[in-house]
Amino acid sequence: MDLIAETIAAIRPLDETAMRAARDRHDRLTKPRGSLGALEELGVRLSGVAGACPPPLPAPAAVAVFAGDHGVHAQGVTPWPQEVTAQMVQNFLAGGAVVNAFARQAGAEVTVVDVGVATELPPAPGLLVRKVANGTADITQGPAMTADEARRAVEVGIEVARDLVAAGNRCLITGDMGIANTTPSAALIAAFTGRSVEGVTGYGTGIDDITHARKIKVVHTALARARTELPGHDGSDGADPRVASAEPLAVLAQIGGLEHAAIAGFILGAAAQGVPVLLDGVIAGAAALVAAALARGARDYCVAGHRSAEPGHAAALWFLELRPLIDLEMRLGEGTGAVLALPIVSSAVRVLHEVATFDSAGVADKDAASPDGT
Amino acid sequence: MDLIAETIAAIRPLDETAMRAARDRHDRLTKPRGSLGALEELGVRLSGVAGACPPPLPAPAAVAVFAGDHGVHAQGVTPWPQEVTAQMVQNFLAGGAVVNAFARQAGAEVTVVDVGVATELPPAPGLLVRKVANGTADITQGPAMTADEARRAVEVGIEVARDLVAAGNRCLITGDMGIANTTPSAALIAAFTGRSVEGVTGYGTGIDDITHARKIKVVHTALARARTELPGHDGSDGADPRVASAEPLAVLAQIGGLEHAAIAGFILGAAAQGVPVLLDGVIAGAAALVAAALARGARDYCVAGHRSAEPGHAAALWFLELRPLIDLEMRLGEGTGAVLALPIVSSAVRVLHEVATFDSAGVADKDAASPDGT
Repeated sequence: MDLIAETIAAIRPLDETAMRAARDRHDRLTKPRGSLGALEELGVRLSGVAGACPPPLPAPAAVAVFAGDHGVHAQGVTPWPQEVTAQMVQNFLAGGAVVNAFARQAGAEVTVVDVGVATELPPAPGLLVRKVANGTADITQGPAMTADEARRAVEVGIEVARDLVAAGNRCLITGDMGIANTTPSAALIAAFTGRSVEGVTGYGTGIDDITHARKIKVVHTALARARTELPGHDGSDGADPRVASAEPLAVLAQIGGLEHAAIAGFILGAAAQGVPVLLDGVIAGAAALVAAALARGARDYCVAGHRSAEPGHAAALWFLELRPLIDLEMRLGEGTGAVLALPIVSSAVRVLHEVATFDSAGVADKDAASPDGT
Repeated sequence: MDLIAETIAAIRPLDETAMRAARDRHDRLTKPRGSLGALEELGVRLSGVAGACPPPLPAPAAVAVFAGDHGVHAQGVTPWPQEVTAQMVQNFLAGGAVVNAFARQAGAEVTVVDVGVATELPPAPGLLVRKVANGTADITQGPAMTADEARRAVEVGIEVARDLVAAGNRCLITGDMGIANTTPSAALIAAFTGRSVEGVTGYGTGIDDITHARKIKVVHTALARARTELPGHDGSDGADPRVASAEPLAVLAQIGGLEHAAIAGFILGAAAQGVPVLLDGVIAGAAALVAAALARGARDYCVAGHRSAEPGHAAALWFLELRPLIDLEMRLGEGTGAVLALPIVSSAVRVLHEVATFDSAGVADKDAASPDGT
């Protein structure tokens, strides 16, 4: 069995006993029942992930920023020069990007993984060179990558997850860097959710209306081209959920990115090891769709850190039935929205560790009191 | 001049120069312009609060949990026994409540202020006994407190803010404890926003429909009674924005709570000292309406930590034009929603301190590149 199949086979359903224990515990803590809202559901799910109540605190936590370039950049889908991918990698390594500042605040370690940057990067502390290709090919012209490249990029993600968990991390966080990567994200999200291209293609990190219109056309072209190469499809136009019924790795190879592939593997790797994975924005959302198509159970190990301003991200979260913890119209990527949510995840877990019960604190429980408060 | 008037007089408008500097700085940092969404606006406002860009990190931070009891408890508006207020104070002091767990996570210090608990509390480390009264009177029967008590409770909040800032805190956080305190909150919010009683009276920490219907009736009764005692009002029924045109302290004395009064003072005190105040849920929202009615500029120093599940809270935030950082259907109080948001505030400030500029990081700026990305 190969690494991807092995990893998928290792993903267990959430532990129902631990989740029941967490629900019971929440009901005995000194707070009105249900009063922590979505944080209670989160604590319950993390108990299911860990197979224990309380689950371990999500510390140490590691954010892996997967970097890759995109041949579709040539279609003019973004005003940013492609070199910015490599330049931002240097910025991450120097600690100068927003994700670094957020990670210092949240107490997370940043690792940068070159899975497909177009240029060679000099070795540096904090940089893992796992380059599968020098960027993808232009998805309007042909497949983004070969089937073998797609598999290798997914394996990179699995291996990075495995190594970070082996190093003691108890929470993995997705990050990404890749100029033009909201374009393949939109293509993947349209393919896997069946939503319209227009409905999932946004303004990325900031483009004008002309570029946006071009981006929509590019995504249509890429999907129509991909359909003709996927078995069982007739190549007809329009966003088409039938694309998703193809083998997920084949779809990924046609219209994805190397960092999308690696993040999908990273999610599978975290799930296989019973560690929660905190998702960033639209790139992570697209990758999570791939991971969930490969192994539906992987979704249960995902925590949506935030909802970005990108419309495709909302579509991906809707499809995955994940509720974001933060919703502040951020659209930066890098892992920023996920790292920002880490203290919320920690807080949800701390409740199950640290809060006193009605009994232990000597606090009257309303359900033991008469309804009129006497 | 008395302490309240002095405090109000000391509140300065936000510093426009510092806010301009923050906007300019955001535009030079290595991220697409505007890509941090609401966090950029927050960084700008905190610069205006501090009169400096970057503003100081919000650390150390202190949460003050103002505790008080409510005579309206006798009307059966909650199933919780009144003794739970004092019991929860002991739980806070022992470190066993949710706010304690969240504060440990966020690195904030918890201080409990007895401004109006019905029973005597033994002295303890972390407890400030500043009792103005042994709880309020029943607002359906008469004023919650005397005009003098209302003033003294506001002064308690001002003094606590002053002392916490003198101790070095750079961010103040509101907390509250008071069984039945969502009832006076609803009354205050209806009075100050003009929204209907039905629209702002919620299920608090968890009541049944019968109790909810009773609670709505109680708020109507209290407002109608208060109108007859406020100068210039005819006592007619219906939620009435004209109540708010009365002297805000008079409205507070009629239908508020001692912790609402203290939190209003706490907000004024923070604003007067140029320190941001992170607001928790509906009790803080009601208190902020009082503070803003006393000094409109106080609102600018407030950061809404979260939006609670209580409908009156949304109304208060709408009126104050404050956007909550977190929205997870929490309804616990204690300061939990505000403390949970503290790392987000810290992150917004860190961006202005730590993130590299395009120039310093050697990253190409799209606005310096041609639009087709070459």
